[in-house]
Amino acid sequence: MSSPASVITCKAAVAWGAGQPLVIEEVEVSPPQPQEIRIKVVATSLCGSDVAAWESQNIFPRVFGHEAAGIVESVGEGVTEFKEGDHVLTLFTGECKMCRHCTSNKSNICQVLGLERNGVMHSDRKTRFSIRGNPVYHYLGVSSFSEYTVVHWGCAAKVSPTAPLEKICILSCGAATGLGASWNVANVSKGSNVAIFGLGTVGLSVAQGAKLRGASRVIGVDINPEKGEKAKDFGVNVYLNPKDYDEPIHEVIKRMTDGGADYCFECTGDTRVTTTALQSCCDGWGLTVTLGVPKAKPEIAVHYGLLLTGRTLRGSTFGGWRPKSDIPSLVDKYLNKEIVVDEFITHDLQFEDINRAFELMREGKCLRCVMHMPK
Amino acid sequence: MSSPASVITCKAAVAWGAGQPLVIEEVEVSPPQPQEIRIKVVATSLCGSDVAAWESQNIFPRVFGHEAAGIVESVGEGVTEFKEGDHVLTLFTGECKMCRHCTSNKSNICQVLGLERNGVMHSDRKTRFSIRGNPVYHYLGVSSFSEYTVVHWGCAAKVSPTAPLEKICILSCGAATGLGASWNVANVSKGSNVAIFGLGTVGLSVAQGAKLRGASRVIGVDINPEKGEKAKDFGVNVYLNPKDYDEPIHEVIKRMTDGGADYCFECTGDTRVTTTALQSCCDGWGLTVTLGVPKAKPEIAVHYGLLLTGRTLRGSTFGGWRPKSDIPSLVDKYLNKEIVVDEFITHDLQFEDINRAFELMREGKCLRCVMHMPK
Repeated sequence: MSSPASVITCKAAVAWGAGQPLVIEEVEVSPPQPQEIRIKVVATSLCGSDVAAWESQNIFPRVFGHEAAGIVESVGEGVTEFKEGDHVLTLFTGECKMCRHCTSNKSNICQVLGLERNGVMHSDRKTRFSIRGNPVYHYLGVSSFSEYTVVHWGCAAKVSPTAPLEKICILSCGAATGLGASWNVANVSKGSNVAIFGLGTVGLSVAQGAKLRGASRVIGVDINPEKGEKAKDFGVNVYLNPKDYDEPIHEVIKRMTDGGADYCFECTGDTRVTTTALQSCCDGWGLTVTLGVPKAKPEIAVHYGLLLTGRTLRGSTFGGWRPKSDIPSLVDKYLNKEIVVDEFITHDLQFEDINRAFELMREGKCLRCVMHMPK
Repeated sequence: MSSPASVITCKAAVAWGAGQPLVIEEVEVSPPQPQEIRIKVVATSLCGSDVAAWESQNIFPRVFGHEAAGIVESVGEGVTEFKEGDHVLTLFTGECKMCRHCTSNKSNICQVLGLERNGVMHSDRKTRFSIRGNPVYHYLGVSSFSEYTVVHWGCAAKVSPTAPLEKICILSCGAATGLGASWNVANVSKGSNVAIFGLGTVGLSVAQGAKLRGASRVIGVDINPEKGEKAKDFGVNVYLNPKDYDEPIHEVIKRMTDGGADYCFECTGDTRVTTTALQSCCDGWGLTVTLGVPKAKPEIAVHYGLLLTGRTLRGSTFGGWRPKSDIPSLVDKYLNKEIVVDEFITHDLQFEDINRAFELMREGKCLRCVMHMPK
């Protein structure tokens, strides 16, 4: 039996205020509490949600980061599923496996370990990070922009030890979310028309999912032409830039698809685009799935007539994946070359260059930037 | 072979202006044109949509009415499905059986004979009614507030001649719409919690459908306590009047259902209530079906967070029934006593007293008023 874990002092990228560059600081990381594990982060990527929260929220100082892969360093009391040395992906939405939702077989919205928005741990509403004894807050119960972090056992998935952690980290959120939206939430059918709004990692992983399902046409919409170019590698076969048209883009899509797409996906985080997506799908069975998390204007405007004529608007978290139960199999699919992951990683950076990743994301110059932790 | 049909002069209830009492007038009803049938209306009921259109639209003079049963009087060129004497229900949304939607097996939004909003016939954009040669406009391609009317053959369903026309007329819209919303659109499951907003005929037929599916709790919400009393006969086992609570009604429902209903149905025609319905359904798999047609504020406001946590908002026309294909079997279910219909009919009126039906509907004093045509 290993000796009880003690506090680790290590480097973390700390956000001190909204929109301010992160500062690499020495932080204390407490031992895992009961039902928790401490993870040595090996690689962590930057997701748009990190950037949005960093720009708009007011919980500071804080360690962001929620897409990550690492190795279990120590486990807290009562943890039986993990042991030191296990390879894991972190999960920004957990799975307790006991609540009404986890046992329902029809929901991934765990009522115990769902999205944590207050910068603390689910269990005791406290932090596991500090700087000279002063609390440093968490992000979504993960906080992977640190050499070590502590998460609830329900917020990590054990994965194959043969998978490269610096690649599969992006299955911890973005690349899995889009696939799940396509497969679990929309259940895209063979021969269908699909329109995707926003061609970042999430949108392109929707495209990958749709292509693998045999969609006959995958239309990608983005105002950034660089994204349009890249999108063809992921299954988008028609790229539309709304700036190239005088008419609303939903009119273009409706004409192109003889009445509207079968499935539309909103991946920009702009609620006005959700309205456009709903306008772009067809009467009768058109389905719009909304994935983006908006920074502003949280209300989506939906004209009742779009619903009356048979459309559906659906949302989901993490593409409907039950995070612990399903994500390890996605890693296996990657190892079996059934899905691509590496191609989403446009930049490999050292951890200390993390602010560069924020710049690249804000400028729309990357898909995923992966930060490699010091060995 | 019968001789060609000629113009019929008969009585119709004509609306001359928005909100003005109808006037019983002598109208000329032209013979059915190709692909059309002329129907002797036997009984017609008043639906909330008639009242809403009469109050708010500006196409006059007009013959309203879209819930009706009658007997085919004559058929136009090319009509093979119907013959004189057939018993029919009128259909406010048709089924051409040939378009991409009708042949899809997944849509009831016929692209040829869908909702007609301009007061004319689908085929030639003209009217079949006139008064001294001046056109009188149609409503939804049906216009049943007339002793005789003309509809496209795709806008009528042949039904069992043993069914009482003065009862089954309400399966032509309201009583079928709610059943279909429950069965086809939501697919209500056994043991579920259901909340219904608006306890008119549509809402109560949702309740009937949910009860027949074995829902364990059917919550009915209405600000009119008389509706609440009546609702118990149709399967509503909890009645809530929002006026009785200081807190928002969705909070009451969430508490009562341990997190929210499995299915919510908006049957009031107020888009703000759709927002409330979505707030009243549960995380993970909560589904809100919107059935109402609003008179004002056509945009529904949907907070993205309700979708992110796994809710779905879905609309439909006519409860998802393929009108010609499915409605005759509902009449059979009525004859087999598998569904109730008579109980929705609170008032039997003579046709000339039709304005009384409008008053009763506006005052919330009826479910369905059936107008009986002169023999």
